[in-house]
Amino acid sequence: MKSYRHELWFEVPGRRAFINITPNVEECLARSGVREGLCLVNAMHITASVFINDDESGLHHDYDVWLEKLAPHEPVSQYRHNGYEDNADAHMKRQVMGREVVVAITEGKLDFGTGEQIFYGEFDGGRKKRVLVKIIGE
Amino acid sequence: MKSYRHELWFEVPGRRAFINITPNVEECLARSGVREGLCLVNAMHITASVFINDDESGLHHDYDVWLEKLAPHEPVSQYRHNGYEDNADAHMKRQVMGREVVVAITEGKLDFGTGEQIFYGEFDGGRKKRVLVKIIGE
Amino acid sequence: MKSYRHELWFEVPGRRAFINITPNVEECLARSGVREGLCLVNAMHITASVFINDDESGLHHDYDVWLEKLAPHEPVSQYRHNGYEDNADAHMKRQVMGREVVVAITEGKLDFGTGEQIFYGEFDGGRKKRVLVKIIGE
Repeated sequence: MKSYRHELWFEVPGRRAFINITPNVEECLARSGVREGLCLVNAMHITASVFINDDESGLHHDYDVWLEKLAPHEPVSQYRHNGYEDNADAHMKRQVMGREVVVAITEGKLDFGTGEQIFYGEFDGGRKKRVLVKIIGE
Repeated sequence: MKSYRHELWFEVPGRRAFINITPNVEECLARSGVREGLCLVNAMHITASVFINDDESGLHHDYDVWLEKLAPHEPVSQYRHNGYEDNADAHMKRQVMGREVVVAITEGKLDFGTGEQIFYGEFDGGRKKRVLVKIIGE
Repeated sequence: MKSYRHELWFEVPGRRAFINITPNVEECLARSGVREGLCLVNAMHITASVFINDDESGLHHDYDVWLEKLAPHEPVSQYRHNGYEDNADAHMKRQVMGREVVVAITEGKLDFGTGEQIFYGEFDGGRKKRVLVKIIGE
């Protein structure tokens, strides 16, 4: 069994953003030499997500509006978590969108269906944050 | 390490449905010959889910009502993603229910707890769509 | 390839609670002898979650309030699933928070980022329930 590990780093200037990290994960897979196995991609922070969906700017706007409706940032005083921090809503948005994805590796490729792309979802930006890529297989 | 891959195909006539795919995944596992390992089951489309919950029609009705409340289909004009398509809500419902499940394989069986069954959740039907089963182990 | 399996048991007196199970999972990992691989941790019940987030009591309170807003327990008559049971809301809360996490194992440790802790989320307590830890790797 082979294993491979790599960290991807991001710094989103504003509070929220969606970044397509598919090319970064494909590069990791190529370097790993794994042909058959599983690829785990997870946010290494608890106010961010890794998820798979469409690379379409209209949809990303819709996600942002929708998540803000489900878990509004303001008033920040509505959340007990907010004292030193103001990011309780980010901990909620991340649960809706998910921490991680596991992608099958087949014949040396990410085994994707129609339109699948991997995104880093930032909900509390303004600082350097990380995503873990871990690959196991043969 | 052994690996096994199979696609399941579905065509839901209406817009939304939940289909119990546990027997299909068990058949894949039997064919794989894997006794100890992990089984990844994921939707290969970004408007559908694979999730684990109860096979109870009342609950499925409740899920449908609840998801429609969290991410309403209409008015379709409320979403920027909707232009050529009208399925933005399906991209949201799928995030709530999830893209994939990872199930442990122990002694050649899906290592399930009480009431666990695997479902394909369709949120934008009317065409042929796929689920990936990928098994690794020994 | 090595594999390891262990069940963790919990009995929450009330209806809902969040329990930090990170030390239990670390103990499993130490016993498994796996240095590189993947660790799956999943609820073995369909009204409970395993998720990764912050060990902060204010946030846990916020999660409880938020989940109750997204999927209210009462009136129990609003859900068709509720007849013999009254836990339809628990099946929904569990979907928002997720069934499982997959954590990378690197150099014999859970490969965690900033603040990551594993929680059992109970949404329908008052009885003994289980979490599965399955580890594969080398």
